[in-house]
Amino acid sequence: MNRNANPIRSDIAWSTTDRITVRGRDLPGQILGHMNLGDFAFLQLTGREATPQQSAVFNAIIITLVEHGLTPSAIAARLTYSGAPEAMQAAVAAGISGLGSVFVGSMEDAARMLSEALPDPTDCFEAKLTEIARDQVAAYRQSNRILPGLGHPIHKPVDPRAPRLFEIAAENGMAGPYVRLIQAIAAEAERVHGRSLPVNATGAIGAICCEFGFPWRIVRGFCVMARAIGLVGHILEESERPIAREIWLRVDDEATAHLRPT
Amino acid sequence: MNRNANPIRSDIAWSTTDRITVRGRDLPGQILGHMNLGDFAFLQLTGREATPQQSAVFNAIIITLVEHGLTPSAIAARLTYSGAPEAMQAAVAAGISGLGSVFVGSMEDAARMLSEALPDPTDCFEAKLTEIARDQVAAYRQSNRILPGLGHPIHKPVDPRAPRLFEIAAENGMAGPYVRLIQAIAAEAERVHGRSLPVNATGAIGAICCEFGFPWRIVRGFCVMARAIGLVGHILEESERPIAREIWLRVDDEATAHLRPT
Amino acid sequence: MNRNANPIRSDIAWSTTDRITVRGRDLPGQILGHMNLGDFAFLQLTGREATPQQSAVFNAIIITLVEHGLTPSAIAARLTYSGAPEAMQAAVAAGISGLGSVFVGSMEDAARMLSEALPDPTDCFEAKLTEIARDQVAAYRQSNRILPGLGHPIHKPVDPRAPRLFEIAAENGMAGPYVRLIQAIAAEAERVHGRSLPVNATGAIGAICCEFGFPWRIVRGFCVMARAIGLVGHILEESERPIAREIWLRVDDEATAHLRPT
Amino acid sequence: MNRNANPIRSDIAWSTTDRITVRGRDLPGQILGHMNLGDFAFLQLTGREATPQQSAVFNAIIITLVEHGLTPSAIAARLTYSGAPEAMQAAVAAGISGLGSVFVGSMEDAARMLSEALPDPTDCFEAKLTEIARDQVAAYRQSNRILPGLGHPIHKPVDPRAPRLFEIAAENGMAGPYVRLIQAIAAEAERVHGRSLPVNATGAIGAICCEFGFPWRIVRGFCVMARAIGLVGHILEESERPIAREIWLRVDDEATAHLRPT
Repeated sequence: MNRNANPIRSDIAWSTTDRITVRGRDLPGQILGHMNLGDFAFLQLTGREATPQQSAVFNAIIITLVEHGLTPSAIAARLTYSGAPEAMQAAVAAGISGLGSVFVGSMEDAARMLSEALPDPTDCFEAKLTEIARDQVAAYRQSNRILPGLGHPIHKPVDPRAPRLFEIAAENGMAGPYVRLIQAIAAEAERVHGRSLPVNATGAIGAICCEFGFPWRIVRGFCVMARAIGLVGHILEESERPIAREIWLRVDDEATAHLRPT
Repeated sequence: MNRNANPIRSDIAWSTTDRITVRGRDLPGQILGHMNLGDFAFLQLTGREATPQQSAVFNAIIITLVEHGLTPSAIAARLTYSGAPEAMQAAVAAGISGLGSVFVGSMEDAARMLSEALPDPTDCFEAKLTEIARDQVAAYRQSNRILPGLGHPIHKPVDPRAPRLFEIAAENGMAGPYVRLIQAIAAEAERVHGRSLPVNATGAIGAICCEFGFPWRIVRGFCVMARAIGLVGHILEESERPIAREIWLRVDDEATAHLRPT
Repeated sequence: MNRNANPIRSDIAWSTTDRITVRGRDLPGQILGHMNLGDFAFLQLTGREATPQQSAVFNAIIITLVEHGLTPSAIAARLTYSGAPEAMQAAVAAGISGLGSVFVGSMEDAARMLSEALPDPTDCFEAKLTEIARDQVAAYRQSNRILPGLGHPIHKPVDPRAPRLFEIAAENGMAGPYVRLIQAIAAEAERVHGRSLPVNATGAIGAICCEFGFPWRIVRGFCVMARAIGLVGHILEESERPIAREIWLRVDDEATAHLRPT
Repeated sequence: MNRNANPIRSDIAWSTTDRITVRGRDLPGQILGHMNLGDFAFLQLTGREATPQQSAVFNAIIITLVEHGLTPSAIAARLTYSGAPEAMQAAVAAGISGLGSVFVGSMEDAARMLSEALPDPTDCFEAKLTEIARDQVAAYRQSNRILPGLGHPIHKPVDPRAPRLFEIAAENGMAGPYVRLIQAIAAEAERVHGRSLPVNATGAIGAICCEFGFPWRIVRGFCVMARAIGLVGHILEESERPIAREIWLRVDDEATAHLRPT
């Protein structure tokens, strides 16, 4: 097969006998002891060092994604651990595998809607945001789609994470056009639909990711890496006070009771 | 099936309509904007808030585990992403799945060796550490096992992460008996084997985990959650400048060249 | 939380102290020794026993999906195994994780195109198939999409699996309207595009799945379960004559050569 | 890095523009339409074609492993699917990830115990098997370990799969020394422990794998590939009549009820 080989290149890290370098920084000398984990994640993902303001906001959004209770993800990780406690990594992998459209979708969709509606954030006087908001709400209504990032099935009247994330963004000079745009969309949606539809955590994170200039596709990655931390916490608890076996037995008993002869 | 149901309980997090609480702290009010990601990971995993000293050391050891270049893990994640770019979470899951005995083993083994050799760290005057070190080296030699956490196939004469991690531990009052013990073991091993066998990064992390009082089984969890961050970085690079397809074509071409008719 | 609990039910299998039943058949008495693995898979998935004709065709399409050489999936599985040989299941899981849009996509798309273009297969005289084919080719051309299931990057002039699968289908009375439709689409595409575009294996399998009446979404499941068998084969070979480590070292060396100081 | 590159080779399959070959057989001409899925799995894994007797026995043992009800594996797969229905492969991967020591262990352990106790199966007159059985039971008793492959928590007085698998093995001339050995071990264990401890399905499969000459490590692979089929069945049912969401809500409600303010 006469194929011209393409080069294989990666710019993330390199090492020699005496040096270990990540994103151009000497790991022992310039990173260890000088950065926290959130800032290093920012460096690993973007190739840039976070400013103090970016650090504050980035750490807050990633932390928001770490732990969401006994989600399907956490239960799947615990069930997997109960079958293969010697391979904890496989349990985390199982838990991560379900972070798809249903749970990460609205965050991705919010980031995508905002970035596509306002491709150039430098060009946004207030009237324009209002106009975009009106257009978006109308477009979603017409195509019968749900606006992402608004309302919450449990947290009422308001998802308490959203105003706090906006507050942290504002304190750090990052509550810019995308944050104002999603708030304009929420206001317009409330006007049109005649009910309370405040921005929720996924909407807030979607908007703040746009403020950073992150592409919308990266949002899922934030969720995956954050949740990996949360899942390790669940697996540790499972190793000390297991619940997976009880979940299994209850489900198995109930699910096939109608089939078993009495 | 007349089984007595056991309770299903988790103490990590809870939420109501207006509150979200993780490890007893109000997420919006007490965590967001007040902690960095490393400190929150410490809280999620241990249920305790890290002291400033613990924060400095814990962030450093987790950061050390994030990025190790184009490891089998990173390549597997990139290959998986190339087949299912719409499911980035599955690519991270694939990369994590290989964090088993070969790559995480020596770190686990070092933590285990140290904690089992010195179950009570308050009971350790210097002569005792020397004695334990002598016994451990002899025991590993006799059973023909490799002492974990010493030497390095690439980083010579010394793995530069180890002295830096020990330095950070010392600056924060955490270079206690386990750090001294692994150094004593390294010294004894060098004496017995007649060649340089300095503590490497896995040995340093194993020892520092013992200083924290972490059980040795948790060490794999640290690695898994750290590497999830690193893998997201690799997948982002893969999405911008792919190498997986080239790796695939080269491997497939070469592997079966001896079978194909000429 | 005053929620009305919904029932948890599954109709696949049940067991008591002395009986084990799958899809209503006694496993020891009616299945073991009476069915081959492909037929049992058919029963597990559909709840029905395959006729001899269905058995012949179904076994052939699943077998076609088992082994495709050193694919990204197989390489990812081998790399994962090299890090965690004690957890072979995690290596298979890693390999399966990449069976997404890129590799399974054209098979799903072919099945979807055919079933949506011909919702009622009983209503299909030849002139109608020709008309549908013309419309489909025109529609894909207009929207600048690639017709799924036609042509092949490597297998030229024709993918040898496709005519063989059609032959097996015909021998078993299952080369019905969907098989004729994809062949009509191929003929029309060749006419319009002026080059050879024969039906490939994914197109043949897509069409035959429609003959069975399988929903297009099931096609990915066939691929996943078949490939699991193939991946176990690769992992066994890896355990005897490893290549993962060599792949890793080559990639790592080349990828960062441009960054390392000379 | 002046490393001598090692060759990368695989002997499983190869293809050219017009040929596709697996284990030396032409896929379209010699495999499709000529083998069932179980026989092709045997070929893929061993490189040999199964005799009719081997085919009967191999298909039976793999089928036995496909479906075990709502196991932790099946529930984890369903939960994962509920979060990422667009990535069914990730749900199967999650379900497979838990096939570790707890569920596959006793089968592996049985195969290992038998093959290590009787390394040369040609050398086994009856008295020798009785002696090995006595030694094994004594050894497990002394080290306080549970003999693998005997007894069953649910299936009493006897796991109905075991006698059926032995029957199929006998009908095909494969109820040789290992089958007799595990039965001798069961008899000795019943004598020593004074209670019924018949061979269960995992013991029967372990013994039959030894009859085939399979290494004990392969047993997990059989389980993984079989269960992948079973899990696709569960995911299809989940897509039609979901239970994952209900499991999630029940677990989440109950688990944190003790923490939530009343």
